[in-house]
Amino acid sequence: MRVSNKILFFVLDGASDRPVGKSTPLQSAITPNLDKLADTGISGIMDTIAPGIRPGSDTAHLSLLGYDPYKYYTGRGPFEAAGVGIDVKAGDVAFRCNFATLKDGLIVDRRAGRIRETTELAHSISEGVDVGTDFIFKESTGHRAAMVLRGEDLSADVTSNDPKKENKPMKEFHAISSKAEKTAKILNDFLAQSIDILESHPVNQERSSAGMPPANVILLRGAGLVPAIIPFEEKYGLKSAVVAAAGLVIGIGKMCGMEHVSFDGGTGGVDSDVVGKVRTAIKALEDHDFVLVNIKGADEAGHDGEFEKKRDFLSRIDEAFSEVLDLKDTMVVVTADHSTPVSIKDHTADPVPIMINGDGVRVDNVHAYNEIDAANGGLNRLRGMDIMHILMDLINRAEKFGA
Amino acid sequence: MRVSNKILFFVLDGASDRPVGKSTPLQSAITPNLDKLADTGISGIMDTIAPGIRPGSDTAHLSLLGYDPYKYYTGRGPFEAAGVGIDVKAGDVAFRCNFATLKDGLIVDRRAGRIRETTELAHSISEGVDVGTDFIFKESTGHRAAMVLRGEDLSADVTSNDPKKENKPMKEFHAISSKAEKTAKILNDFLAQSIDILESHPVNQERSSAGMPPANVILLRGAGLVPAIIPFEEKYGLKSAVVAAAGLVIGIGKMCGMEHVSFDGGTGGVDSDVVGKVRTAIKALEDHDFVLVNIKGADEAGHDGEFEKKRDFLSRIDEAFSEVLDLKDTMVVVTADHSTPVSIKDHTADPVPIMINGDGVRVDNVHAYNEIDAANGGLNRLRGMDIMHILMDLINRAEKFGA
Repeated sequence: MRVSNKILFFVLDGASDRPVGKSTPLQSAITPNLDKLADTGISGIMDTIAPGIRPGSDTAHLSLLGYDPYKYYTGRGPFEAAGVGIDVKAGDVAFRCNFATLKDGLIVDRRAGRIRETTELAHSISEGVDVGTDFIFKESTGHRAAMVLRGEDLSADVTSNDPKKENKPMKEFHAISSKAEKTAKILNDFLAQSIDILESHPVNQERSSAGMPPANVILLRGAGLVPAIIPFEEKYGLKSAVVAAAGLVIGIGKMCGMEHVSFDGGTGGVDSDVVGKVRTAIKALEDHDFVLVNIKGADEAGHDGEFEKKRDFLSRIDEAFSEVLDLKDTMVVVTADHSTPVSIKDHTADPVPIMINGDGVRVDNVHAYNEIDAANGGLNRLRGMDIMHILMDLINRAEKFGA
Repeated sequence: MRVSNKILFFVLDGASDRPVGKSTPLQSAITPNLDKLADTGISGIMDTIAPGIRPGSDTAHLSLLGYDPYKYYTGRGPFEAAGVGIDVKAGDVAFRCNFATLKDGLIVDRRAGRIRETTELAHSISEGVDVGTDFIFKESTGHRAAMVLRGEDLSADVTSNDPKKENKPMKEFHAISSKAEKTAKILNDFLAQSIDILESHPVNQERSSAGMPPANVILLRGAGLVPAIIPFEEKYGLKSAVVAAAGLVIGIGKMCGMEHVSFDGGTGGVDSDVVGKVRTAIKALEDHDFVLVNIKGADEAGHDGEFEKKRDFLSRIDEAFSEVLDLKDTMVVVTADHSTPVSIKDHTADPVPIMINGDGVRVDNVHAYNEIDAANGGLNRLRGMDIMHILMDLINRAEKFGA
């Protein structure tokens, strides 16, 4: 009897939904390949964190990889920072950042006119700011960036300078606990110095003269202490890779020590090259034991509340799965990180479908891949933290507890 | 797309059962309305505490409301005391009490001839007893009462004076731990003083001359330290009410800060006015977000071991549900706190059926409301502590964990 020895783990981000009328987007989509996998696999439903707990993409992915989010999720900053390519270390304090527009003390545009190119601005900040503590500031896509503070006696117990709404006064950083006073002072220093540099920066002078809002201030939020994470390979003995377009998911993969295998064509939206992404993942299986693939578009369509857009993107995902059907020696998992119902336009706690297809699974009577049929499957109802244990057992690499 | 914004939560106390022959009382009852709700809702089974753990009504209700009974259940006293209308406070030590009959040092009747009217006796105790510590003593229905001690250095680590069986000697109160010595002394003082008052009380002199057993002693049991409970409204942001006849359930509701909405006709037995209770609950929804309704009769029939009585009462419950079918914007939950199989005549840990009907639920293939069909439902198997999280998510008021 064959035993699969590799794991290909698909997260169809936000694909799970609630019925609109009589069916969900997954039920309405044309999914012969996913249905074939369900027909010859085992299905179930899964609370990626726990029943009734609304997951973020970050907390859900941690949980699916077997890292308890209640222990490892300290805020979004660390994962965003890792996602933009900063080599974060345990003990760093990390932030997600926006370039924004400050005028007369008010944040008049939280995205600085959706500025596209911030490399020079970020470079000038990195070179010109000195707050007496090491920091790494790096631009991301669009108006986004990330910052990491590294040193002694730092704390993430600080407020944000982001007023959250536009045309409100920018805030100062404040310590929430006494151990964060040094960090709050560093951040206020950073803010003052970066404003000086950005105000007079040629890029902004050019933007101002062209009538575009200058990117003259950095908003820092999502403060989090970078946790000490046992690398995935050490935890499971599996050489692992992540294929994703979303910085947050790449960041989670990197923080877990996964190799980020990039490919051209991933956008994180419904225009993403899904076929290319799936091929890249299959290719990555050649020299990895575990490949995590995040396909983001369905989540976007859910947030937009667009049923047809979501349904059609799920049909496109299915087409890309034709090449997954023939994989040998591979445990294929297809699940989601959370539901993003088009009726709610945000994440909900409704359980996600999970399907496992590979050598030795107890094939059940579920013949279609969707949230509703999955509830009748042989896996019944699981939690996200269970799934890596189950997969390790199915590829015969789980340790026995007892004799 | 509509999203329900209110929750109507029915606990059919002890309704869940085991098959007798081929069916359970719920399967045998005539329940077209409950079946309609199941048909258009989502079902499952639920361990109100955990698989195999036999729940009390008190621990189960706490769990269903999202209060971990292992943390908040310190004994039955606090909930009984709250149920009879004592405004208990965190730190109080509370007891459930019986008026009983003492003769030559023996408890010859633990219910004092099922005495019905004890208001004057309770009043005399409240006025006449002085133990150097504040106490509240209040009569309940029949021979029942409750007592609360309030002050410094009190403890619930005390034995009871109740011999549990009749014609046994009454016991003294003893401290189980050294910190309870003061409390044991107070209780023994209370006991001696109350016996003096009761012995010579006109009510008892009248009973004795009429040949009825005098209510000349108080048995105190179920000692519990009143826990610090986060009010339901603070915990969930929902204005809440409880509709129940059972003092214990009213007490739990009150301790959680729920408003007790009373109505005439609730008896806690199979003669209860179920239609009136359901109407009262529906009416209470007008100015509350969450209404807990406990319907007790099926539990009584279960304890009595009477299949037909239980079945017929469940059919009567169903009739009252006709008005529930048409509710708009309301998440309707129908479950039980525990099974009370007629074959066992006591609570068992068999999971209870749970059904949720409201906007956005993933309608499954369950068409009838009972323990057996529910096991095939889309909710699969839950725990009592999950259900409030799930409901908060369904009414779109859950907080997201992560981003």
